[in-house]
Amino acid sequence: MTSPFRPSSAAPLGTGLSRSFGQRVALWIGDAAKKTPARTAALVFILAAVLFTILLSLPAASADGRPTPLHDAMFTAVSAVTVTGLVTVDTATHWSFFGQAIILVAIQTGGLGIVTIALLLARAVSRRLGVKSKVFAQQSIGSSGLGEVGSLLRIVVLTTLTIEAALAVVLVPRFMIVDEKWWEGLWHGVFYAVSAFNNAGFASNIGGLAAYGPDLWTLVPIMIGVFVGSFGFPVFLTIITHRFTRARWTLHTKLTLSVTTMLLVAGAVAWGALEWNNTGTVGELGVGDKIFHALFSSVMMRSGGFALTDTGESLPATLLATDALMFVGGGSASTAGGIKVATIAVLFLAIVAEARGDKHVRAANRTIPDATLRLAISVTFLGATLVLSATALLMLVTDAPLDRILFEVISAFATCGLSVGLSEELHPFGKYVLSALMVAGRIGPAGLAAALAVRQRTLLYDVPEERPIIG
Amino acid sequence: MTSPFRPSSAAPLGTGLSRSFGQRVALWIGDAAKKTPARTAALVFILAAVLFTILLSLPAASADGRPTPLHDAMFTAVSAVTVTGLVTVDTATHWSFFGQAIILVAIQTGGLGIVTIALLLARAVSRRLGVKSKVFAQQSIGSSGLGEVGSLLRIVVLTTLTIEAALAVVLVPRFMIVDEKWWEGLWHGVFYAVSAFNNAGFASNIGGLAAYGPDLWTLVPIMIGVFVGSFGFPVFLTIITHRFTRARWTLHTKLTLSVTTMLLVAGAVAWGALEWNNTGTVGELGVGDKIFHALFSSVMMRSGGFALTDTGESLPATLLATDALMFVGGGSASTAGGIKVATIAVLFLAIVAEARGDKHVRAANRTIPDATLRLAISVTFLGATLVLSATALLMLVTDAPLDRILFEVISAFATCGLSVGLSEELHPFGKYVLSALMVAGRIGPAGLAAALAVRQRTLLYDVPEERPIIG
Ligand SMILES: [K+]
Ligand SMILES: [K+]
Repeated sequence: MTSPFRPSSAAPLGTGLSRSFGQRVALWIGDAAKKTPARTAALVFILAAVLFTILLSLPAASADGRPTPLHDAMFTAVSAVTVTGLVTVDTATHWSFFGQAIILVAIQTGGLGIVTIALLLARAVSRRLGVKSKVFAQQSIGSSGLGEVGSLLRIVVLTTLTIEAALAVVLVPRFMIVDEKWWEGLWHGVFYAVSAFNNAGFASNIGGLAAYGPDLWTLVPIMIGVFVGSFGFPVFLTIITHRFTRARWTLHTKLTLSVTTMLLVAGAVAWGALEWNNTGTVGELGVGDKIFHALFSSVMMRSGGFALTDTGESLPATLLATDALMFVGGGSASTAGGIKVATIAVLFLAIVAEARGDKHVRAANRTIPDATLRLAISVTFLGATLVLSATALLMLVTDAPLDRILFEVISAFATCGLSVGLSEELHPFGKYVLSALMVAGRIGPAGLAAALAVRQRTLLYDVPEERPIIG
Repeated sequence: MTSPFRPSSAAPLGTGLSRSFGQRVALWIGDAAKKTPARTAALVFILAAVLFTILLSLPAASADGRPTPLHDAMFTAVSAVTVTGLVTVDTATHWSFFGQAIILVAIQTGGLGIVTIALLLARAVSRRLGVKSKVFAQQSIGSSGLGEVGSLLRIVVLTTLTIEAALAVVLVPRFMIVDEKWWEGLWHGVFYAVSAFNNAGFASNIGGLAAYGPDLWTLVPIMIGVFVGSFGFPVFLTIITHRFTRARWTLHTKLTLSVTTMLLVAGAVAWGALEWNNTGTVGELGVGDKIFHALFSSVMMRSGGFALTDTGESLPATLLATDALMFVGGGSASTAGGIKVATIAVLFLAIVAEARGDKHVRAANRTIPDATLRLAISVTFLGATLVLSATALLMLVTDAPLDRILFEVISAFATCGLSVGLSEELHPFGKYVLSALMVAGRIGPAGLAAALAVRQRTLLYDVPEERPIIG
């Protein structure tokens, strides 16, 4: 496995005059990665979004052969590369096959995304590694041993390709049976496999998943792909290393899997109970179908973004519950967004510790450091602030009611992609706001974590404790 | 100063057969206060709400001499005793003078409220004081020296009466000039003085404060009363003890005053900027009036609840900004509600510490214990959960849009009293939900803090640290 940045880290400093342009760029990236890894990763990420925007603006990318307006091209590119799935134009009808292929590549780029970029950057600077990158790598992938970076990178790519291939093997035959032409079925099968595992929520066919009706052969693999995709690479790594010997799992894996399961159940119960008699969604279906829809909807709230019913027809209370569950998002260093399930787990454990009068926050016979708790607070409040600010901004440019705005904003922040249809109605300014929010949501929590954790300032003197009165 | 519970704590245990009923009740309260002080305080508080509900249900309490329906009587009683100020019937026209007097007594009872009850309970059990009560008293009033309880209680009552009297001295002459009859002016002056200092937001005249127009002689004292009332007794205590020698102030006082000032400025700027051209509120006024309205509105977001303009006419973005500022609320152990400014200050300081890479959360040369941080998280998440749950419940019984429901719900939780007029439109079930939320909001954060902090479980062995991946 070779890294594109390898030369820069191998080259000694101060011999720059004879270097090629490529070497200079690699050196610059390696240097920037050492100084400000989070910012560099974000920059690389934004550059990818710009590249895909340009590609999608090309006349060849649209079905009618005319250039797509910047705000729609950018929105789609950002939505794909952040694996969000919100759209302002219909993916099936607006784009040409070339356009859809660009979207698929953007999804795969974004899905391997920031974690891989982080790994590449970490590898690039591995010989002269500063403490910042170490912390960044640890925060992003849950491992501080940088000798492992190469094998981690292999695992990321292999896991992704393996699971996507498995999904495609199940899905392609089904789509070949359903679709008119065999190559259409092949294309849709591959597209849905990639879109599902990456929690992207993009649909390549007219009418989306709902067009195939309640077909378990299509829906169950997609559900499983989305569900597994939301765990994140640190969890895959643990399971690959220790299989299902739960005692040897990391605390992170235990927390992520148990909280993801709890959220799945909570979401399904809430969605099912609220929508049970709603004729706009599942009110007229049988009991079994209702339960399946509830489970499917709950899985998609993590970050999947596929919908079988018209989300805009859901009850306001359902939208509110979905808001809360989308905000939490998926696993750390996964293709899912949100503040992440480990974050909410740590906050919840802190509250339980407080209620029990424990001095330390503990779980599974491990102590969770107070610094981790502070990080969890920071991520949560940054997320809430982003959501509130974007909501307020959109309120100034649209007359849509708060519940629709809030839903679309949280879906963008959490890179979830469920939609009440607001994105396509928005003024270009609103589309730019949501685009910025998708980028912030994708690089935000992990990037913030890295940016925040870079400096461990140790004061040499202690100051007395004093507690303000809370509540 | 004698306490009604004194006999119980003075009486030796085990001589119960010859005791009177009153002694038994006092003993029971003293006993309960020792075991579960927070729950006892909440119970006493709820009993007060029930008593005022019964009184307001009497035919004599309403202007037309007919009994008021339970849901309106209870809503008003709860709103008054929690010093919230939300109403379902017009205070000026629905109630008789007797009814208004009951409301005033309820406000004063609630205003002295839970802090005083806590102090009385603490005093009652001072001779055989368990650690729970000590912690409770410390959390509620910021002092663990229980020899001070008597003098603290005196300070609470004296401060309240002194400031209310000062307000009345300024307000009564003004109302006497404006109102038709001198006794009406006297009544309104006293009512507004009590209502303002207790952050109650109840108005006794037809049309409320807006009826007097932009009259600075009325509005400035009320603004100051509300602003000072939102600081809380721990702050008064510090200032009474150390005057304005800032270096000797407690950290709590420094944080509360500085964050309250910041929120005042932020609220005024946000409200003013958003409403500047809104013809439904201040769009047609002069620049000076606009600025005054912005300042007045910002002060009232802490917990005051008075409004000069129709809150329902404000822009959606203004309502959202107000939501956030109401949720924060006022000072700890004050008549204001919300999660409290010290809580948000601690969370903010934790985020700053994280960003700077500090090992400890520090402010004004003091370390804030990690336990305090956990308490702040707990209070905030309990608050958010209460707000979300109540919003979802109301959504099931009303077709009102999310922004109106959320505003009224946060106003109830934060015992703020600003209203978009939803309370009076609600089905009785909705009124009960808001009533429960006002009670939870009033006793919640402080009561929760006490309930949470009661047990300091010390494990005798240490378990290894392990940090989940956040964000
Ligand atoms: K998504
Ligand atoms: K109030």
